[in-house]
Amino acid sequence: MGIYRVLIKTYDQRELVYKISKLFSDMNLNIIANSEYVDHDENLFFMRSEVAGENLNSYALKNELENILPINSEISIIDSSKRRRIIIFVTKEVHCLGDILMRHVEDELNADIVEVIGNYNNLENTVKKFDIKYITISHENLSREEHALKIIEHLETIEKFDYIILAKYMRVLPALFVEKYKHRIINIHHSFLPAFVGANPYKQAYERGVKIIGATAHFVTNDLDEGPIIEQGIAHIDHSYSWKDMQKAGRDVEKIVLSKALKLLLEDRIFINKNKTVIL
Amino acid sequence: MGIYRVLIKTYDQRELVYKISKLFSDMNLNIIANSEYVDHDENLFFMRSEVAGENLNSYALKNELENILPINSEISIIDSSKRRRIIIFVTKEVHCLGDILMRHVEDELNADIVEVIGNYNNLENTVKKFDIKYITISHENLSREEHALKIIEHLETIEKFDYIILAKYMRVLPALFVEKYKHRIINIHHSFLPAFVGANPYKQAYERGVKIIGATAHFVTNDLDEGPIIEQGIAHIDHSYSWKDMQKAGRDVEKIVLSKALKLLLEDRIFINKNKTVIL
Amino acid sequence: MGIYRVLIKTYDQRELVYKISKLFSDMNLNIIANSEYVDHDENLFFMRSEVAGENLNSYALKNELENILPINSEISIIDSSKRRRIIIFVTKEVHCLGDILMRHVEDELNADIVEVIGNYNNLENTVKKFDIKYITISHENLSREEHALKIIEHLETIEKFDYIILAKYMRVLPALFVEKYKHRIINIHHSFLPAFVGANPYKQAYERGVKIIGATAHFVTNDLDEGPIIEQGIAHIDHSYSWKDMQKAGRDVEKIVLSKALKLLLEDRIFINKNKTVIL
Amino acid sequence: MGIYRVLIKTYDQRELVYKISKLFSDMNLNIIANSEYVDHDENLFFMRSEVAGENLNSYALKNELENILPINSEISIIDSSKRRRIIIFVTKEVHCLGDILMRHVEDELNADIVEVIGNYNNLENTVKKFDIKYITISHENLSREEHALKIIEHLETIEKFDYIILAKYMRVLPALFVEKYKHRIINIHHSFLPAFVGANPYKQAYERGVKIIGATAHFVTNDLDEGPIIEQGIAHIDHSYSWKDMQKAGRDVEKIVLSKALKLLLEDRIFINKNKTVIL
Repeated sequence: MGIYRVLIKTYDQRELVYKISKLFSDMNLNIIANSEYVDHDENLFFMRSEVAGENLNSYALKNELENILPINSEISIIDSSKRRRIIIFVTKEVHCLGDILMRHVEDELNADIVEVIGNYNNLENTVKKFDIKYITISHENLSREEHALKIIEHLETIEKFDYIILAKYMRVLPALFVEKYKHRIINIHHSFLPAFVGANPYKQAYERGVKIIGATAHFVTNDLDEGPIIEQGIAHIDHSYSWKDMQKAGRDVEKIVLSKALKLLLEDRIFINKNKTVIL
Repeated sequence: MGIYRVLIKTYDQRELVYKISKLFSDMNLNIIANSEYVDHDENLFFMRSEVAGENLNSYALKNELENILPINSEISIIDSSKRRRIIIFVTKEVHCLGDILMRHVEDELNADIVEVIGNYNNLENTVKKFDIKYITISHENLSREEHALKIIEHLETIEKFDYIILAKYMRVLPALFVEKYKHRIINIHHSFLPAFVGANPYKQAYERGVKIIGATAHFVTNDLDEGPIIEQGIAHIDHSYSWKDMQKAGRDVEKIVLSKALKLLLEDRIFINKNKTVIL
Repeated sequence: MGIYRVLIKTYDQRELVYKISKLFSDMNLNIIANSEYVDHDENLFFMRSEVAGENLNSYALKNELENILPINSEISIIDSSKRRRIIIFVTKEVHCLGDILMRHVEDELNADIVEVIGNYNNLENTVKKFDIKYITISHENLSREEHALKIIEHLETIEKFDYIILAKYMRVLPALFVEKYKHRIINIHHSFLPAFVGANPYKQAYERGVKIIGATAHFVTNDLDEGPIIEQGIAHIDHSYSWKDMQKAGRDVEKIVLSKALKLLLEDRIFINKNKTVIL
Repeated sequence: MGIYRVLIKTYDQRELVYKISKLFSDMNLNIIANSEYVDHDENLFFMRSEVAGENLNSYALKNELENILPINSEISIIDSSKRRRIIIFVTKEVHCLGDILMRHVEDELNADIVEVIGNYNNLENTVKKFDIKYITISHENLSREEHALKIIEHLETIEKFDYIILAKYMRVLPALFVEKYKHRIINIHHSFLPAFVGANPYKQAYERGVKIIGATAHFVTNDLDEGPIIEQGIAHIDHSYSWKDMQKAGRDVEKIVLSKALKLLLEDRIFINKNKTVIL
């Protein structure tokens, strides 16, 4: 008996739940869990179902769904037992990477870490301890685009991967990169977006004298720090924190927020709805 | 066009979503929002749908649902425009009551406060300012049961009410009372249950030296502080808090937690599942 | 035996604690609680002491402190039993005002509400229930400055007051007003500053698709929403929240954050350090 | 110029701050940061100062402090540059250990991990990756006391260590062990104490139907889960969480709470006050 995740994003119309649940029933699929959301402003319908069935032909199911749903519906059917393949990008800080590595040790993710790519080699030793490949692709003497092209060149040698996780990767990715891996890159930004976009948000937060700092996991789009937000977290601070103290306190928020977002991603719970996410 | 909340609690079986959504479709009802939950351990299915339709005969809908669902299913159909009628029980503290009164001023609750009943008259003046009836039913010289019977006697003179809200009502209600208004009484307990059941939880918390205090809104059952939990909240404290300081800090948690629970109750989002709640 | 709060802000130098504690000792004052903070970047020293003594001549103490501290030190000595006098400004929303009124009913604030001033009369009935004066000073047909001048004219008829609390007062106060009551006006802004300055932050938050909303209590300065932050709070939301839902959820954060800031203010715990606060 | 942490716990009496700050002044020590707390119920005074001075003779300072303070005062003077030596106890779960190891990689702790001791060998490989010694001391076929004696025998071969960190060590330590390393053992308990003491708190939490789970870092005493609490944290859950889901969600809380407690410990911020902690 396999368990499948059925993700549907389509125009809202009457009887969608009825039609879809009828199809599941006709195809002998039992609904284990089911969530729906209707964006009444945009007239969009989102649904995530976990269905159990034997010998499901997912192409046939997708085909049948296409028949009963409005044209241009987005439909995905994912075998929940399938391990995803992720690539992690890093710069010099270890905390977000380390948090993912430790979840990997516990096999909590149901995903394989194909490799870790850094623009420095600082984290190579740590990554290799876990028998994971580490590739350094330096940005030195390269324009942003040249560097991105070098990374793409390398990525194309990899058989297949699902997502790129920016685990404190401190370089802005150019449009050509972001568009190539559209909706497949998530980033952790070290502020409570949209406060403090750009460089050194902790210094900005220190200068503004905030009493709470935060971190934001989001999909990467062409607009820096403007992509759809997946998850946010916060920590309380006070006047006694230097910006370095904020940075230290922020690390714990960053790593937990990124790992939560990664979990949602790997469980296929995130829909992109224009510049927002719907999480079911 | 009316909006109705359809609540279903029944034994889980195949095709429930299909059958129910088909019925909605057949009766020309459009699903606006829909949430389901299956308790696989108990084999129970919970569903809360908001449906829109014209001239709905809710008795007919209920009847049809009974036809397609397992016997002994629990089905409620509630017109969302219908204002509920609540009664608030108090003792001496004003903060929880006051929070509800202010929401009443903003007409945030979609409910009428039929009256406030106190075992002291301390809060009478405050309540009357809002043109709400205040009844003092003193417990002096009465056994717990005698006092409860006096309250019941009074409640039976009231035409109809939906829920009793214990807003820091500091008397234990006896079994005869709790059973009479089963699943219709909610309480705010001033601790993070199950820690610190019983009297003066802040003093207990102080003596234990906890770093976080909490409050718990729950349905009242015969077992003191053991009823199904609806909502919990917390506040961070430190060694400098006396138990009086904890009590003060706790008040803000108590009132917000109780008001959140009340909102869930009035929106018909809470199902009772043995000694727990399912909130959809 | 009186309890006094001694607040000192001065240039940091060696032996300050020693000199001050020696003076307390010489003047027969017992330290009950004591907090210090040194801003090493700005070379500033902040101290808040609670001292107990009999028949303290606070002018004499201030004088002695001036003798031992660097020139231009800021020194305040406040009798902790003295009730402060506050004025509350409102527009149409009741929740922040209501929260303060209920604390007033519990006499939790150790302050008198001299009066409530609204630019509409919507909240007049609610305020009057509590035997508190309500003044409507309409802004209609007046420039921002003209309106402010009318308020000032009225305020000058009041014998004495300590602070102005903007409890969802939805008008920007002009420089002439802010400067007149410098460091005596606190505001609640309905966002997690510096995110979403200006009008309708909930709509902005909705459009950005954030997963956490917040509120910020701050001193009012000439730069809109840029004054020193006193307290911030947050609430988790999700994709299902309309901006009206965010607004509702935000109200609970706003009122608690404003009341916490007010408590800090009335306990003389807040120092202004350029554009930040130090809270001792 | 060295920075020293001076910790004082003594009976409260007049002029303590004055006498201590005078001594600092006399010994040419500059106060960088200073916190005090008076427990008025117990008549105890707690103080943590960071002082800077050249060529400080800490024995002389301690001696002088003893001269001016009440007898039986507890006084510690710690060179802040001194790296502490910790030993970590584990069983099978990696998340708390892993969190500490990653902080070790970032050299965030100012401490050396002398070794990791497990009652199983499951985590040996992970620990060795970081060039840290791993010792398995199996409890099989041993009584609780016999096992503890074997661990003590081993610990006595180690030159010196400061603290034992129980990072999800799932064995109860007997009195002979706890007393030997009194106030030097901290534990993470996977519940919001005092709720759910003992075995499998997540299962207990699941059965009670709580809406918030928590974790508690505390000193280990002879009374199981009853030692002085250092830090607590929480996570919100809902009806859809199985106890395994709670356990997973709880891991993030556990590791952050333990690491925060460890940081407080290594910064010498924790005083034990009977069965509570004072954190300065």
